[in-house]
Amino acid sequence: MNADVRWLNQVSWDDQGLVPVIAQDHASGDVLMFAWMNREALETTARTGEAVYWSRSRRKLWHKGEESGHIQKVHELRMDCDNDVILLRIEQVGGIACHTGRHSCFFQKYLAETGWETVEPVLKDPNLIYSKDGGKSHD
Amino acid sequence: MNADVRWLNQVSWDDQGLVPVIAQDHASGDVLMFAWMNREALETTARTGEAVYWSRSRRKLWHKGEESGHIQKVHELRMDCDNDVILLRIEQVGGIACHTGRHSCFFQKYLAETGWETVEPVLKDPNLIYSKDGGKSHD
Repeated sequence: MNADVRWLNQVSWDDQGLVPVIAQDHASGDVLMFAWMNREALETTARTGEAVYWSRSRRKLWHKGEESGHIQKVHELRMDCDNDVILLRIEQVGGIACHTGRHSCFFQKYLAETGWETVEPVLKDPNLIYSKDGGKSHD
Repeated sequence: MNADVRWLNQVSWDDQGLVPVIAQDHASGDVLMFAWMNREALETTARTGEAVYWSRSRRKLWHKGEESGHIQKVHELRMDCDNDVILLRIEQVGGIACHTGRHSCFFQKYLAETGWETVEPVLKDPNLIYSKDGGKSHD
Protein backbone atom coordinates (compact mmCIF):
# COMPACT_ATOMS: atom_id res chain seq x y z
CA MET A 1 0.00 0.00 0.00
CA ASN A 2 1.54 3.30 -1.00
CA ALA A 3 1.28 6.59 0.87
CA ASP A 4 -1.24 7.97 -1.64
CA VAL A 5 -3.75 5.30 -0.70
CA ARG A 6 -2.98 5.21 3.00
CA TRP A 7 -3.84 8.85 3.71
CA LEU A 8 -7.20 8.42 1.98
CA ASN A 9 -7.89 5.24 3.95
CA GLN A 10 -7.20 7.10 7.19
CA VAL A 11 -10.28 9.27 6.62
CA SER A 12 -13.36 7.98 8.45
CA TRP A 13 -15.83 8.15 5.58
CA ASP A 14 -19.47 8.10 6.67
CA ASP A 15 -21.96 5.42 5.63
CA GLN A 16 -22.48 7.26 2.34
CA GLY A 17 -18.75 7.42 1.68
CA LEU A 18 -18.62 11.15 2.41
CA VAL A 19 -16.81 13.50 4.77
CA PRO A 20 -17.90 17.03 5.76
CA VAL A 21 -15.60 19.82 4.58
CA ILE A 22 -15.17 23.38 5.88
CA ALA A 23 -13.63 25.92 3.49
CA GLN A 24 -11.83 28.78 5.20
CA ASP A 25 -10.10 31.80 3.66
CA HIS A 26 -6.42 31.18 4.37
CA ALA A 27 -5.63 34.88 4.79
CA SER A 28 -8.62 36.38 6.63
CA GLY A 29 -9.74 33.25 8.48
CA ASP A 30 -13.32 33.79 7.27
CA VAL A 31 -15.34 30.59 7.10
CA LEU A 32 -16.66 30.68 3.55
CA MET A 33 -18.68 27.53 2.99
CA PHE A 34 -19.43 23.98 4.02
CA ALA A 35 -19.70 21.05 1.63
CA TRP A 36 -19.00 17.32 1.29
CA MET A 37 -16.33 15.21 -0.38
CA ASN A 38 -16.13 11.60 -1.38
CA ARG A 39 -12.84 9.79 -1.80
CA GLU A 40 -12.38 10.85 -5.42
CA ALA A 41 -13.12 14.50 -4.58
CA LEU A 42 -10.54 14.58 -1.80
CA GLU A 43 -7.91 12.82 -3.89
CA THR A 44 -8.53 15.22 -6.80
CA THR A 45 -8.42 18.25 -4.51
CA ALA A 46 -5.07 17.20 -3.05
CA ARG A 47 -3.61 16.32 -6.47
CA THR A 48 -4.75 19.41 -8.39
CA GLY A 49 -4.65 22.04 -5.62
CA GLU A 50 -8.19 23.19 -6.44
CA ALA A 51 -11.25 22.34 -4.35
CA VAL A 52 -13.44 19.58 -5.77
CA TYR A 53 -16.52 18.58 -3.77
CA TRP A 54 -19.25 15.95 -4.07
CA SER A 55 -22.57 17.55 -4.89
CA ARG A 56 -25.19 15.57 -2.98
CA SER A 57 -28.05 17.21 -4.89
CA ARG A 58 -26.55 16.53 -8.34
CA ARG A 59 -24.82 13.30 -7.34
CA LYS A 60 -21.59 14.11 -9.12
CA LEU A 61 -18.19 15.67 -8.57
CA TRP A 62 -18.33 19.44 -8.40
CA HIS A 63 -15.23 21.40 -9.30
CA LYS A 64 -16.00 24.56 -7.31
CA GLY A 65 -15.98 27.50 -9.72
CA GLU A 66 -16.54 25.40 -12.84
CA GLU A 67 -19.44 27.68 -13.84
CA SER A 68 -18.70 30.88 -11.94
CA GLY A 69 -14.93 30.97 -12.31
CA HIS A 70 -14.78 31.31 -8.52
CA ILE A 71 -12.39 28.44 -7.97
CA GLN A 72 -10.71 27.75 -4.65
CA LYS A 73 -6.93 27.36 -4.57
CA VAL A 74 -5.94 25.08 -1.72
CA HIS A 75 -3.21 26.31 0.60
CA GLU A 76 -3.60 23.70 3.30
CA LEU A 77 -5.57 20.53 3.98
CA ARG A 78 -6.34 19.69 7.59
CA MET A 79 -8.20 16.82 9.28
CA ASP A 80 -9.73 16.71 12.75
CA CYS A 81 -9.06 14.51 15.76
CA ASP A 82 -11.69 11.92 14.79
CA ASN A 83 -10.50 11.78 11.16
CA ASP A 84 -14.04 12.57 10.04
CA VAL A 85 -13.97 16.28 9.14
CA ILE A 86 -11.73 18.09 6.62
CA LEU A 87 -10.72 21.74 6.81
CA LEU A 88 -9.55 23.40 3.59
CA ARG A 89 -7.58 26.61 3.92
CA ILE A 90 -8.03 28.25 0.54
CA GLU A 91 -7.71 31.33 -1.59
CA GLN A 92 -11.17 32.19 -2.92
CA VAL A 93 -10.73 33.46 -6.47
CA GLY A 94 -13.10 36.38 -7.12
CA GLY A 95 -13.72 36.75 -3.39
CA ILE A 96 -17.15 35.12 -3.77
CA ALA A 97 -17.75 31.66 -2.32
CA CYS A 98 -21.55 31.69 -2.10
CA HIS A 99 -23.96 30.93 -4.94
CA THR A 100 -25.95 34.00 -3.82
CA GLY A 101 -23.04 36.22 -4.89
CA ARG A 102 -21.82 36.87 -1.37
CA HIS A 103 -18.30 36.52 0.04
CA SER A 104 -19.33 33.81 2.50
CA CYS A 105 -22.30 31.45 2.74
CA PHE A 106 -22.67 32.39 6.43
CA PHE A 107 -24.38 35.71 5.87
CA GLN A 108 -27.35 35.18 8.22
CA LYS A 109 -26.81 36.31 11.80
CA TYR A 110 -29.07 35.41 14.70
CA LEU A 111 -30.53 38.29 16.69
CA ALA A 112 -32.57 37.44 19.77
CA GLU A 113 -35.18 40.06 18.91
CA THR A 114 -35.77 39.29 15.24
CA GLY A 115 -34.23 35.90 14.42
CA TRP A 116 -32.01 35.38 11.36
CA GLU A 117 -30.99 38.59 9.62
CA THR A 118 -28.95 38.96 6.43
CA VAL A 119 -25.87 40.98 7.36
CA GLU A 120 -23.57 40.59 4.34
CA PRO A 121 -24.01 42.28 0.95
CA VAL A 122 -24.41 40.63 -2.45
CA LEU A 123 -21.15 41.46 -4.23
CA LYS A 124 -22.30 40.29 -7.66
CA ASP A 125 -25.72 39.42 -9.07
CA PRO A 126 -25.92 35.60 -9.38
CA ASN A 127 -27.57 36.07 -12.81
CA LEU A 128 -24.32 37.64 -13.95
CA ILE A 129 -22.23 34.89 -12.36
CA TYR A 130 -24.08 31.86 -13.69
CA SER A 131 -25.08 31.56 -17.31
CA LYS A 132 -27.83 29.00 -16.97
CA ASP A 133 -29.54 28.56 -13.66
CA GLY A 134 -29.00 31.88 -11.92
CA GLY A 135 -27.04 30.25 -9.15
CA LYS A 136 -28.31 27.18 -7.40
CA SER A 137 -26.77 25.56 -4.39
CA HIS A 138 -24.68 22.53 -5.25
CA ASP A 139 -24.83 21.04 -1.77
CA MET B 1 -46.16 31.41 16.21
CA ASN B 2 -43.71 33.59 18.09
CA ALA B 3 -40.25 34.64 16.91
CA ASP B 4 -38.55 32.15 19.22
CA VAL B 5 -40.10 29.24 17.39
CA ARG B 6 -39.86 30.70 13.91
CA TRP B 7 -36.07 31.03 13.86
CA LEU B 8 -35.72 27.40 14.92
CA ASN B 9 -38.20 26.29 12.27
CA GLN B 10 -36.17 28.10 9.62
CA VAL B 11 -33.27 25.70 10.14
CA SER B 12 -33.26 22.81 7.66
CA TRP B 13 -32.78 19.95 10.09
CA ASP B 14 -31.54 16.73 8.47
CA ASP B 15 -33.47 13.45 8.56
CA GLN B 16 -32.07 12.79 12.04
CA GLY B 17 -33.15 16.22 13.27
CA LEU B 18 -29.58 17.50 13.35
CA VAL B 19 -27.57 20.32 11.82
CA PRO B 20 -23.77 20.46 11.42
CA VAL B 21 -22.03 23.16 13.47
CA ILE B 22 -18.64 24.79 13.00
CA ALA B 23 -17.07 26.45 16.06
CA GLN B 24 -14.67 29.27 15.26
CA ASP B 25 -12.59 31.42 17.63
CA HIS B 26 -14.18 34.84 17.36
CA ALA B 27 -10.90 36.70 17.83
CA SER B 28 -8.29 34.66 15.91
CA GLY B 29 -10.62 33.13 13.32
CA ASP B 30 -9.19 29.67 14.05
CA VAL B 31 -11.61 26.86 13.26
CA LEU B 32 -11.65 24.92 16.53
CA MET B 33 -14.09 22.03 16.12
CA PHE B 34 -17.05 20.58 14.28
CA ALA B 35 -20.07 19.02 15.95
CA TRP B 36 -23.84 18.60 15.64
CA MET B 37 -26.88 20.20 17.22
CA ASN B 38 -30.50 19.20 17.49
CA ARG B 39 -33.27 21.73 18.00
CA GLU B 40 -32.95 21.71 21.80
CA ALA B 41 -29.17 22.17 21.63
CA LEU B 42 -29.47 25.18 19.33
CA GLU B 43 -32.23 26.75 21.40
CA THR B 44 -30.24 26.23 24.61
CA THR B 45 -27.07 27.63 23.02
CA ALA B 46 -28.87 30.78 21.91
CA ARG B 47 -30.64 31.23 25.25
CA THR B 48 -27.68 30.61 27.56
CA GLY B 49 -24.83 31.98 25.44
CA GLU B 50 -22.78 28.81 25.93
CA ALA B 51 -22.34 26.13 23.27
CA VAL B 52 -24.48 23.02 23.75
CA TYR B 53 -24.19 20.25 21.16
CA TRP B 54 -25.86 16.92 20.50
CA SER B 55 -23.47 14.06 21.12
CA ARG B 56 -24.23 11.44 18.47
CA SER B 57 -22.11 8.81 20.24
CA ARG B 58 -23.73 9.33 23.65
CA ARG B 59 -27.14 10.30 22.27
CA LYS B 60 -27.63 13.19 24.65
CA LEU B 61 -27.12 16.92 24.96
CA TRP B 62 -23.52 17.84 25.54
CA HIS B 63 -22.73 21.12 27.28
CA LYS B 64 -19.24 21.66 25.88
CA GLY B 65 -16.83 21.99 28.80
CA GLU B 66 -19.11 20.27 31.31
CA GLU B 67 -16.24 17.93 32.31
CA SER B 68 -13.17 19.89 31.23
CA GLY B 69 -14.28 23.40 32.17
CA HIS B 70 -13.44 24.39 28.60
CA ILE B 71 -16.79 25.98 27.85
CA GLN B 72 -17.46 28.05 24.74
CA LYS B 73 -18.97 31.51 25.16
CA VAL B 74 -21.00 32.39 22.09
CA HIS B 75 -20.33 35.77 20.51
CA GLU B 76 -22.25 35.24 17.30
CA LEU B 77 -24.54 32.65 15.71
CA ARG B 78 -24.54 32.43 11.91
CA MET B 79 -26.41 30.25 9.41
CA ASP B 80 -25.53 29.47 5.82
CA CYS B 81 -27.36 30.12 2.55
CA ASP B 82 -29.14 26.74 2.56
CA ASN B 83 -30.16 27.08 6.23
CA ASP B 84 -28.50 23.75 6.94
CA VAL B 85 -25.17 24.64 8.58
CA ILE B 86 -24.54 26.73 11.73
CA LEU B 87 -21.39 28.73 12.44
CA LEU B 88 -20.66 29.62 16.07
CA ARG B 89 -18.20 32.41 16.70
CA ILE B 90 -17.03 31.76 20.23
CA GLU B 91 -14.55 32.48 22.97
CA GLN B 92 -12.88 29.19 23.91
CA VAL B 93 -12.36 29.22 27.67
CA GLY B 94 -8.98 27.67 28.55
CA GLY B 95 -7.90 27.94 24.90
CA ILE B 96 -8.42 24.19 24.42
CA ALA B 97 -11.29 22.97 22.22
CA CYS B 98 -10.05 19.45 21.45
CA HIS B 99 -10.47 16.39 23.67
CA THR B 100 -6.80 15.59 22.92
CA GLY B 101 -5.76 18.71 24.86
CA ARG B 102 -4.99 20.76 21.75
CA HIS B 103 -6.20 24.25 20.86
CA SER B 104 -8.06 23.05 17.76
CA CYS B 105 -9.33 19.67 16.61
CA PHE B 106 -7.80 20.33 13.17
CA PHE B 107 -4.21 19.50 14.13
CA GLN B 108 -3.47 17.05 11.32
CA LYS B 109 -2.02 18.58 8.17
CA TYR B 110 -1.75 16.81 4.83
CA LEU B 111 1.70 16.63 3.28
CA ALA B 112 2.00 15.12 -0.19
CA GLU B 113 5.12 13.18 0.79
CA THR B 114 4.04 11.69 4.08
CA GLY B 115 0.25 12.04 4.43
CA TRP B 116 -1.37 13.37 7.61
CA GLU B 117 1.08 14.85 10.10
CA THR B 118 0.32 16.22 13.58
CA VAL B 119 1.41 19.85 13.55
CA GLU B 120 -0.10 21.29 16.73
CA PRO B 121 1.12 20.65 20.30
CA VAL B 122 -0.82 19.12 23.19
CA LEU B 123 -1.32 22.06 25.57
CA LYS B 124 -2.57 19.97 28.47
CA ASP B 125 -2.56 16.22 29.14
CA PRO B 126 -6.13 14.91 28.63
CA ASN B 127 -5.71 12.80 31.78
CA LEU B 128 -5.39 16.05 33.71
CA ILE B 129 -8.38 17.59 31.93
CA TYR B 130 -10.86 14.74 32.31
CA SER B 131 -11.41 13.00 35.62
CA LYS B 132 -12.93 9.77 34.34
CA ASP B 133 -12.32 8.73 30.78
CA GLY B 134 -9.09 10.48 29.86
CA GLY B 135 -10.79 12.46 27.15
CA LYS B 136 -13.03 10.77 24.65
CA SER B 137 -14.57 12.39 21.64
CA HIS B 138 -18.20 13.36 22.17
CA ASP B 139 -19.01 13.52 18.47
